[in-house]
Amino acid sequence: MKLIDHYMYLRGDIHRIEKEMEQAVSKAHPVLQEATLQLLQAGGKRIRPVFTLLSAKFGNYDTQALKHIGVALEFVHMASLVHDDVIDNSDLRRGKLTVKAKWDNRVAMYTGDYMFGKAIARVANFEEVGIHETMAWVMHEMAVGEIEQIRLQYEWEQNIRTYLRRIRRKTAVLIAGSCKMGAQVAGVSPQVQKGLYQFGYYVGLAFQITDDILDFTSSEEALGKPAGGDLLQGNITLPVIYAMEKDSALKTELLQTFAESLPSREKMAHLLEQIKESGGVEYARAINNRYLNKAYQTLETLPDIPARRSLFEIANYIGERDH
Amino acid sequence: MKLIDHYMYLRGDIHRIEKEMEQAVSKAHPVLQEATLQLLQAGGKRIRPVFTLLSAKFGNYDTQALKHIGVALEFVHMASLVHDDVIDNSDLRRGKLTVKAKWDNRVAMYTGDYMFGKAIARVANFEEVGIHETMAWVMHEMAVGEIEQIRLQYEWEQNIRTYLRRIRRKTAVLIAGSCKMGAQVAGVSPQVQKGLYQFGYYVGLAFQITDDILDFTSSEEALGKPAGGDLLQGNITLPVIYAMEKDSALKTELLQTFAESLPSREKMAHLLEQIKESGGVEYARAINNRYLNKAYQTLETLPDIPARRSLFEIANYIGERDH
Repeated sequence: MKLIDHYMYLRGDIHRIEKEMEQAVSKAHPVLQEATLQLLQAGGKRIRPVFTLLSAKFGNYDTQALKHIGVALEFVHMASLVHDDVIDNSDLRRGKLTVKAKWDNRVAMYTGDYMFGKAIARVANFEEVGIHETMAWVMHEMAVGEIEQIRLQYEWEQNIRTYLRRIRRKTAVLIAGSCKMGAQVAGVSPQVQKGLYQFGYYVGLAFQITDDILDFTSSEEALGKPAGGDLLQGNITLPVIYAMEKDSALKTELLQTFAESLPSREKMAHLLEQIKESGGVEYARAINNRYLNKAYQTLETLPDIPARRSLFEIANYIGERDH
Repeated sequence: MKLIDHYMYLRGDIHRIEKEMEQAVSKAHPVLQEATLQLLQAGGKRIRPVFTLLSAKFGNYDTQALKHIGVALEFVHMASLVHDDVIDNSDLRRGKLTVKAKWDNRVAMYTGDYMFGKAIARVANFEEVGIHETMAWVMHEMAVGEIEQIRLQYEWEQNIRTYLRRIRRKTAVLIAGSCKMGAQVAGVSPQVQKGLYQFGYYVGLAFQITDDILDFTSSEEALGKPAGGDLLQGNITLPVIYAMEKDSALKTELLQTFAESLPSREKMAHLLEQIKESGGVEYARAINNRYLNKAYQTLETLPDIPARRSLFEIANYIGERDH
């Protein structure tokens, strides 16, 4: 079930954002157009614009202005996906060939650059310095997060602290920024803006932790890419970090396995099984719940309007989704 | 002789921009820091901030505000250099190993992203929508220009029109934008803003055409990279386009040579010689002069202040430089 089905009253605005994105690339080079449309049509939860719209409900909801922000945020998100696939050397995303697989890394680099350009062009419509600051902060943190991601790829000496710092930059800041920009456009009070940012931040952490858990528990069919792909790509996530801390023999096995070459399908299945047996997934779920609870607590401090209930339900959905 | 030596009265502000850039990355990841410092210390003509500062002389010159714009433009420029090296597969720039050669393409991708982020963060300081629009326009056009660059790499069926469109996006728009943003920050009248943009645009075209000529006429020592590198990298520039149009046997030879594999050093020397003999360099010089003259004519329409004379001399220098 798609997230927007829960929130019929946003459907019109989300649809307008999607149409606007299609139109924004309609005169672009065929490669850019195809890459954008493929990412758009693959669906996706559109949680960033959904959070923007809901956050704006705490102030003056201006559809036209919010559309620009929604388009900008989805373009930033898409750009980061396209660039991420280069880092992770991913050939599939949501069951489709990635830009870097279909063309090459250089095309993926520029497709991402182009999308960043489109995003910035949208934000250029606004006078408020605060909106530009949020956008700049988000893009800056994402870029730093992605550098960290490269540096920590296949780096087995990680702990929960380095993991959280990485996903904070890679995921949480964009979702927090989506909430904040919606609030900024709507002229929401600084205090409520801050609350919405905090909420988005905690939900963003939970969102990424859930994603990382699903890579262990979900099927290839549901993910649109092979399960265990994170580990194979050297993306050491929370379940693995926990498993290595608890079971030093497993850590040694992981190091030795990856030191030689990429593990076979059978070897991977064995490793994934051991990580699950260590309780790594349960541990990650506990951390996930901790952040979800912080998100709920933050919501409690915000004005009690219907949008607050929606934010609560989305947070809940995000923490419990199975795909 | 460095360009800033001609303009002692800008030296202080350019120096402040350079220091500010060093400081901006002083807490960044070592790779980012090293990449930025290397590009900074390699010198460069800083023509973008120089144009920004000179353009601001037509209005209210505010050092502090201009510094942000200068830093932003140099970061955008550096980011595009780092990404360009990925496209061109370049190992050397100004005699130093490029980011993609020293680390890899993925690091270069993210180093560029980070620099774009830094640039946007600087521009976020401004309220004027026009400044954001110019910045967005520049980044957008550069991204599209770079996609065109990939598409036209080793594409021998080009003409002067496709060449000009490519360098317009790749180089001219950033230089035009540098002039315009200086003018915008200084609150210069829209008419003069437009004139400065036009001036920068023509100078930008001349700057790139000169660069492309130098790749044929300059020495490896002066360029900091092998001469003829553009052709080797499949970057088909004006002298080659002219030579192919005039001498169909040469065109056939080029196509056949590159269809097999990359040419040997001897073969390259032979090809470069033939391109020069065809008059391709003289032709490019004529086109270059046409744009320089348009730049001069545009300057004539602007208020007659000392900065106008400086702009004239820089344009002149750019069109006649030998490195």
